[in-house]
Amino acid sequence: MTLQTKYLLDESQMPKFWYNIQADLPKALPAVLHPGTLQPIGPDDLAPLFPMELIMQEVSTEREIEIPEPVRDIYRLWRPAPLYRAHRLEKALGTPAKIFYKYEGVSPAGSHKPNTAIPQAFYNKQAGVKRLTTETGAGQWGTSLSFAGSLFDLEVLVFQVRVSYDQKPYRRAVMETYGARCLPSPSNQTEYGRSVLAQRPDHPGSLGIAISEAVELAVQREDTKYALGSVLNHVLMHQTIIGLEAMEQLQMADAWPDVVVGCTGGGSNFAGIAFPFIGHALRGGKKSRIVAVEPAACPSLTRGKYAYDFGDTGHMTPLTKMHTLGSTFTPPGFHAGGLRYHGMAPLVSHCKELGLLDAVAYTQGQCFEAGVTFARAEGIVPAPEANHAVKGAIEEALRCKREGKSETILFNLCGHGHFDMAAYQKYFAGELKDEQYDEKELAMALSGLPSVPEPA
Amino acid sequence: MTLQTKYLLDESQMPKFWYNIQADLPKALPAVLHPGTLQPIGPDDLAPLFPMELIMQEVSTEREIEIPEPVRDIYRLWRPAPLYRAHRLEKALGTPAKIFYKYEGVSPAGSHKPNTAIPQAFYNKQAGVKRLTTETGAGQWGTSLSFAGSLFDLEVLVFQVRVSYDQKPYRRAVMETYGARCLPSPSNQTEYGRSVLAQRPDHPGSLGIAISEAVELAVQREDTKYALGSVLNHVLMHQTIIGLEAMEQLQMADAWPDVVVGCTGGGSNFAGIAFPFIGHALRGGKKSRIVAVEPAACPSLTRGKYAYDFGDTGHMTPLTKMHTLGSTFTPPGFHAGGLRYHGMAPLVSHCKELGLLDAVAYTQGQCFEAGVTFARAEGIVPAPEANHAVKGAIEEALRCKREGKSETILFNLCGHGHFDMAAYQKYFAGELKDEQYDEKELAMALSGLPSVPEPA
Repeated sequence: MTLQTKYLLDESQMPKFWYNIQADLPKALPAVLHPGTLQPIGPDDLAPLFPMELIMQEVSTEREIEIPEPVRDIYRLWRPAPLYRAHRLEKALGTPAKIFYKYEGVSPAGSHKPNTAIPQAFYNKQAGVKRLTTETGAGQWGTSLSFAGSLFDLEVLVFQVRVSYDQKPYRRAVMETYGARCLPSPSNQTEYGRSVLAQRPDHPGSLGIAISEAVELAVQREDTKYALGSVLNHVLMHQTIIGLEAMEQLQMADAWPDVVVGCTGGGSNFAGIAFPFIGHALRGGKKSRIVAVEPAACPSLTRGKYAYDFGDTGHMTPLTKMHTLGSTFTPPGFHAGGLRYHGMAPLVSHCKELGLLDAVAYTQGQCFEAGVTFARAEGIVPAPEANHAVKGAIEEALRCKREGKSETILFNLCGHGHFDMAAYQKYFAGELKDEQYDEKELAMALSGLPSVPEPA
Repeated sequence: MTLQTKYLLDESQMPKFWYNIQADLPKALPAVLHPGTLQPIGPDDLAPLFPMELIMQEVSTEREIEIPEPVRDIYRLWRPAPLYRAHRLEKALGTPAKIFYKYEGVSPAGSHKPNTAIPQAFYNKQAGVKRLTTETGAGQWGTSLSFAGSLFDLEVLVFQVRVSYDQKPYRRAVMETYGARCLPSPSNQTEYGRSVLAQRPDHPGSLGIAISEAVELAVQREDTKYALGSVLNHVLMHQTIIGLEAMEQLQMADAWPDVVVGCTGGGSNFAGIAFPFIGHALRGGKKSRIVAVEPAACPSLTRGKYAYDFGDTGHMTPLTKMHTLGSTFTPPGFHAGGLRYHGMAPLVSHCKELGLLDAVAYTQGQCFEAGVTFARAEGIVPAPEANHAVKGAIEEALRCKREGKSETILFNLCGHGHFDMAAYQKYFAGELKDEQYDEKELAMALSGLPSVPEPA
C-alpha cells in the first residue's frame, strides 16, 4: 500500500490572511509600559522604531489581517511549506500515534524566520524606510532579514553578538551573500557599543547589547528603522501562516491534532503553529492540547516569573508582562542559540496564564538524542532549536504507546541543522554538556525585577 | 497579476520509471575494458563490486526501468522536487527569456545525490549485502549514501579525502548523524592506504586513493559492496527522474525548453536533467539545445581527449572511453569539489561525440558572481557546483536579451550552498583565485593515456 508522505498545497491555496489571536482571547493582553514613566504607551511611542502599519498590527484586535500581495508573491518562493506524516519515525518508536510535522526548513534561509522578515521589510519599504537595523545571535534572524532586504532593496545592518560573529563566520557569509552588512557587537559604530568597549575591549557581546546598538542607530535617523525577529505580537502573527497551512493540510489527511507541539525561545515559531489551533478551540472548535517545549537551561515558561520586565539587558525597551528569568539573567551557552532569551513573548505568556497551553523543559542532551532519532528515520537533520519540538513530540508519541492510544500529534520542525553541525559533532564526541544555569543568579535576577504598579 | 512561482507535482504524479538513454542512442556505447587484459568485460567481472541488479542496469538497453516501490516510498520524503520560474532573476537580468530551474536542494542531504544513493542502497540490501564502502571528497556523496544506509539499515563506511576530512568536519558530522562511519583517506584500514602512508605519513589524500581504499575493502568481503556517486550508466539513469519530473512540470507551465543547462563533474546531475530531453529529440520530439557547463580549472569536455582511460589514479578500475584529462592529472583545488574529476561519464562523453550536446567552461570567479546574482534575486544560495549551471543559464538569458529572443531556458539547481559558505566568504573577501591547471601537467597526463586497441 502506498502511504502518503507529504501534504502539499498549491500556491493558489496559500492563506491570504494572518491570524490574530488577540481577537479571540477571553482577556486582553496587559498594557505595554514606557521604560521611563512606567505608564502605558501608545502607538506614537513606538514610531521611531517601527513603521505605523506594524505598530497597528501590534495592537490590533482584528481576527484576520490581509497578507499584502507583494508579501505573498515572495512567500511563494517556498510556501506553502510541506506537511509531513512521519511514517518512519512512528515505526521506529513503535507508537500507535500518528505524527505529523510542518517543515519550515524549506525557506531559503532554512527556517521559519523569513515568514516575518518579508512582511517587516515590505511595510518598512512602503513607509519610505531606506535602512533596517537588527541584532542576531547565531544568525538565523540576521540571515532572514538580509534575504528580505535583498528582495525589497533595503539596506540591512546586522549587529551580531561578537562571540557568534567570530565562531560562526558561515552565517555572516550568507548575510553578505544577500548584500547585508554584518558587524560584531559591541561595535564602535554606536555610543552604547563604544561605552561597553571602553570598559572591556574584548567584550564577547550579548543579545541585550546588540539590541541596544541596533535600536540606537534606528532612532537616530529618520530613514532607518529597527526590526525584531520574535517576541512582539505582530511577529507572532506573521508566523501564524504555519498553523493556518497545517490546518488545511491536516484536513487533506483527514486528521486533526490531539496535541500540538512547538519549541519556545522568544515564542514566534511556537505561536505560528499553535495560535491558529488555540483560536479554533476558543471559538468553540475541537480543543487540541498545546505543548511548549523549552530548554532546561533557559526555562522562562517553567521556572520564570510572570511579571513586567524589560526586553533587553540595557533597559532601553518598553516593559511587557511576560514569563521572565529577569533581564539580567545570562543563560549558559548551550547550542540552541535561538532559544537563549530571558523572557517570553507576552502573547505566549498570556496564553500560559490563561491555561491555554502546557510547558515542559528538556536538556540539550535529551534534545540532540531525539534529533538524531528523527534524522535517521525521516532524513532531515533538525536545527538544535527544532530538536526541542522533536523531543516533545517523541515524548507524546511514547506516552501514546504506553497508553495504547492512537492520538494525532502535530509539531513544527522550524528549521534544518545544516549550519549547526558543529553542535552535532560535539554531541557525537560526548563533549556536549547539559549546561546548568546558576540557581543563585536566577534568584538574584528574579528578585531584581522592576517594581511596577499594575496599570488600571 | 499573480505570477506562478513553483510548479509542484503530487506524490501520485511522481515518475514510476527511470529513463535509460541507451535505448535511444543512434550508436551503442564503446565497450568497457578489463584493466589487466584490456579486453571487454562482462557482468560477472563487476560482481565483486556491485549487486547484479545494478550491473544489469549498467548494460541495459531497455528504455524504461521501473523504480521499485520501496525506493519511490523514500523518494517521497522530498520528491517530486519543485520546478521554479525565475521571475525575479529574469527581471534582474532584464531578459525576455523565460528561465526555469529544477531545485534538487530540497533533499535531506541538500543535493541530487540521494536520487541514486537510495536505489543503490535498496538493490544492495535486496542482494543480502550488509555493508557499503565508498569515497567522498567534499562530502555530498558520502552524506547521501549515509542517509540511504540509515533508511535500509546498511553499514556505510566512507573514505573521505584527508584534506577535506580535516577542513570540513561538518559534512562528517552529518554522515555520523545518519549512523555512518567516516575515515580519513589514506587510512591504515587498507593495504593500499598503508602503502601510501608508508611513503608519506602526512599525505593529504585524493579521490583516486579513496576510491582504491573503498574498492579494496569491498572486494575482500562477501557481505560488502562498493557504491559510486556519479560516472556510471546506472547512476546517471537514476538521476533522470530530475528531467522526467521537469518535463511534466514544464507542461503545467505550458512551456518547453529551447535550452537545457546543467553543470558537469562526473556527469550525473547534468545527465539527470538533460538525458530525458535528448531522448525526446532522438525519438523525433522537439529538439532542445543541451549545454554542459564545466569548471575552467578541470575542463574534461572542452580540453580533454575522448579516449580510453582509468576511472581512478591507482588504475584498479576498468577502462572506459570518455573525455579525460588523464588519470594522473590533478585538478587545482577550487571550490566546486564535486566537479574535480579527471574524466567524464562515458554516456555524457558519447553524447558529446555524437553532437547531442555543447560544452562550455567558466572560471570559479565567474560562477560565484553568477551565484550571488541568483541568490539576491531568487533567495536560494546555490552550491559552488550549481553556480556553474547558474552561470550557463545567465549567459543564455543575456544572449536572448542581445538577440531579442524570448527563449525558454531550463537549468538544474542541483544543490544548496549552506555547507559551502567558506567559499562565498573567500569570494567576498577577494581571496578567491581563478585556479589554473598546469598546461605542462595536462599535456603529460594526456600523453600518458593508456594505449588501447579499439575493440571489435
